[in-house]
Amino acid sequence: MYVLEGARLCGEAIEKYRNGELEIYAAFASEKALERYSQYIPTELFEDEKAADFFTVSENVCDFMSGTKGSQGVFLIAKTDEKTLADADISAGKRCGKYIVLDNLQDPGNVGTILRTADAVGIDGVVMCNNCCELYNPKTIRSAMGSALRLNIYNAGELSEVCGVFAKAGVKTFAAVIDSDATSVAKCDFSGSCAVVIGNEGNGLSKEDADCCDEKITIKMHGNINSLNAAMAGGIILWEMFREDNGRDTKL
Amino acid sequence: MYVLEGARLCGEAIEKYRNGELEIYAAFASEKALERYSQYIPTELFEDEKAADFFTVSENVCDFMSGTKGSQGVFLIAKTDEKTLADADISAGKRCGKYIVLDNLQDPGNVGTILRTADAVGIDGVVMCNNCCELYNPKTIRSAMGSALRLNIYNAGELSEVCGVFAKAGVKTFAAVIDSDATSVAKCDFSGSCAVVIGNEGNGLSKEDADCCDEKITIKMHGNINSLNAAMAGGIILWEMFREDNGRDTKL
Repeated sequence: MYVLEGARLCGEAIEKYRNGELEIYAAFASEKALERYSQYIPTELFEDEKAADFFTVSENVCDFMSGTKGSQGVFLIAKTDEKTLADADISAGKRCGKYIVLDNLQDPGNVGTILRTADAVGIDGVVMCNNCCELYNPKTIRSAMGSALRLNIYNAGELSEVCGVFAKAGVKTFAAVIDSDATSVAKCDFSGSCAVVIGNEGNGLSKEDADCCDEKITIKMHGNINSLNAAMAGGIILWEMFREDNGRDTKL
Repeated sequence: MYVLEGARLCGEAIEKYRNGELEIYAAFASEKALERYSQYIPTELFEDEKAADFFTVSENVCDFMSGTKGSQGVFLIAKTDEKTLADADISAGKRCGKYIVLDNLQDPGNVGTILRTADAVGIDGVVMCNNCCELYNPKTIRSAMGSALRLNIYNAGELSEVCGVFAKAGVKTFAAVIDSDATSVAKCDFSGSCAVVIGNEGNGLSKEDADCCDEKITIKMHGNINSLNAAMAGGIILWEMFREDNGRDTKL
């Protein structure tokens, strides 16, 4: 089980629940929240006595449940949907698409922001490996907004296993590193099926993990390089992965 | 005056203070913080009785002063350095460089993240106009990390005035908009002196403000376009502004 908090996020989850795509164990909202966020939250579920798992609670209970200051007063408990890399069906002879691999990232806010951006560029799948912070951490879910519900996200163990699966399927793997000898992401060929591995915030990818990949890539900067955080670096790499296709119709 | 919070940020500010680049009115730290963050914070300043404005305070006082949960227990009160666009000396016949203009952005966290990324790409200046949220808001300062101390940041009124100054100096202005007819940022020519204007999180740039600029540009996306937040959109545009120069030596 995991917790979702916030009116928009819970609204999106309830829509998935109604379409049979998400199992909800319990929902909690304050009366004020039901009034204020009626465009997101279907009030009738909380008023329907047959929908026994939808509870109206006091604001004090909301404040107690919330992980943030200034709670919106809407919460869900939903069933996790844990998928492993085997569920991705990454295999030779088919279009595998583009993936991002999060290797030992520790900050749930960074992971959430990367998930949102991965959703925005239209990624085919996200792999979380090597003890990456948990997808179902409430802060990851909150920062990812609805993206955690929309994306294909797979759990995996060691990066070497992940790279093995990709290699067998002919998916090229890139290690994002801080190394002047690596290929600039602006000059890298991301056409075809490929996966980019992003490492830990403080230490980057270990040498061993970087060496598992086919090629090393880097973001070349001009200014104060300490000012690029992991989420922004991940976002720039995601943008570069899809940059060449950007004559398509959808846009920001 | 404004407040700086956190060990690394305060450490950087104290270095500027010692170089005569920043005026500090008062500094506060808990004993635990002085012990824990001695690599950032020069303990001797707090022990020197002549440095009368450096105070050791209890952890309770720190918790009370802090704007976050889990305070690091280090705070400074420093003198603001308000600059207007006239201080930028943007004029015809000289190299003006590259600027980003923040027009009516309201979220201090977004502004701080954009400032950090602007610092990373090596921007020449940042203009905050049209009632953009205040640079010296504690949350902006905190999210910008040290970048607010390093960047050239100018206050301005209406965007039309800002665009007037840039036009006179031959600096091309681009309006970042959500419009399929606008030029893709991936195909835009950012060579030479130029300025990109980023609009409000919820509403984007007003039509009137977008029309002040020489050209409209947009980030074309493939996925769920609602998943790209203002800070990430700003970061991708900043990356594109400097992308062509990225054969230089410095790198992430």
